[in-house]
Amino acid sequence: MELIPIAIEGEIGEGADLAAIAVAACDLRDLDVLVVTQKVVSKAEGRVARLADGDLDGFDALVAGETRRVLRRRGRLAITETHHGFVCANAGIDRSNAEPGTVTLLPTDPDRSARGIAARIRHLAGVQVAVIVTDTFGRAWRRGLADVAIGAAGIRPIVDLRGTPDHNGRTLEVTEVCIADEIAAAADLVKPKAGGVPMVVARGLPEAYFGAGSAADIVRPYAEDLFR
Amino acid sequence: MELIPIAIEGEIGEGADLAAIAVAACDLRDLDVLVVTQKVVSKAEGRVARLADGDLDGFDALVAGETRRVLRRRGRLAITETHHGFVCANAGIDRSNAEPGTVTLLPTDPDRSARGIAARIRHLAGVQVAVIVTDTFGRAWRRGLADVAIGAAGIRPIVDLRGTPDHNGRTLEVTEVCIADEIAAAADLVKPKAGGVPMVVARGLPEAYFGAGSAADIVRPYAEDLFR
Repeated sequence: MELIPIAIEGEIGEGADLAAIAVAACDLRDLDVLVVTQKVVSKAEGRVARLADGDLDGFDALVAGETRRVLRRRGRLAITETHHGFVCANAGIDRSNAEPGTVTLLPTDPDRSARGIAARIRHLAGVQVAVIVTDTFGRAWRRGLADVAIGAAGIRPIVDLRGTPDHNGRTLEVTEVCIADEIAAAADLVKPKAGGVPMVVARGLPEAYFGAGSAADIVRPYAEDLFR
Repeated sequence: MELIPIAIEGEIGEGADLAAIAVAACDLRDLDVLVVTQKVVSKAEGRVARLADGDLDGFDALVAGETRRVLRRRGRLAITETHHGFVCANAGIDRSNAEPGTVTLLPTDPDRSARGIAARIRHLAGVQVAVIVTDTFGRAWRRGLADVAIGAAGIRPIVDLRGTPDHNGRTLEVTEVCIADEIAAAADLVKPKAGGVPMVVARGLPEAYFGAGSAADIVRPYAEDLFR
């Protein structure tokens, strides 16, 4: 597998055609996975709010609007469950790599965003790629952040290997691997956090990973979650 | 970045020289990261216990011996904190890809395991590689498993980007990325779960990722964890 960063010149504004930008920047092929950061998807979709530097009440109000429930608070940090069901800090709202005086909100429906980009690439370039929209989330138990999939199209987010015999012919126990999150994490490794690389192509993944699916399937339902 | 799977013929037994196996199988270079699954490290280190199929009490006793505290239980599944501080199912003990009638336990000190492999590769091949020992863990909030780093040598597990200016020249807020977990996740993508590929080389990562560090640094201290 190979990870190819796509550097973009200039800012992505509302209405930007991310598929056209990707097609112009990279010779996409069938069975590529195009990994796109939430930041540029939100900007292209106009999911941006004005917020003056230091307006903490305004920030809290924006977070509240994007939040289904607050799971924990520490100081001004809220660990929230968004309306999508994602658990992350401050409902995924942040200022990094946003225009001064603005913040980005998560896309309203990141799976739809991913499907739209995949369909437009098929239209523009005649190739069938999968698309994963990513964001950078904290985790329970472990320090540091990692990129995860918040939207997906054309890829099975969780590959169920239950029933596959292992190396010794024994049937494997529960082994559902979240390859969408693993692809998101992999792509982050070639993406400088300071910006300029909002898309990465992952090439050479097994054909079995591709198919219908959405990142909504990754959300563990509240009632099944032992840690919410 | 490129991910190169290393397929191994035959079983890894106690005393196996994983560094020699890697050197024989792959033309390792400076600044490669060798990702090694827990399974073969445990086998090479003799961290294997005999356990008859269906011996549930024996399994529970093994789990108890490897566990600092049990965080949750659901049926026979225990979400445990190991003596290392890792949070995972059943203290990381499992049968998959173990010899029939046996289970593998996590290495006693996976950071030491990683350091040992890195030092032996330096000795054998004169190259300076980083080593990450991985296991497959579940997560809070999200369905599916993903590979994470449980041991590391020669790589900074968490890259602290606080203070780095973003694309708009604004100082980034807290952005500590756990690249060791992201590399572990990336490597899993080219590793068939059925076995036969216990090692993967990640090549082409930024030089800034390399340096002193251990996976113990990834463990979020109990007292700081909002979800334990």
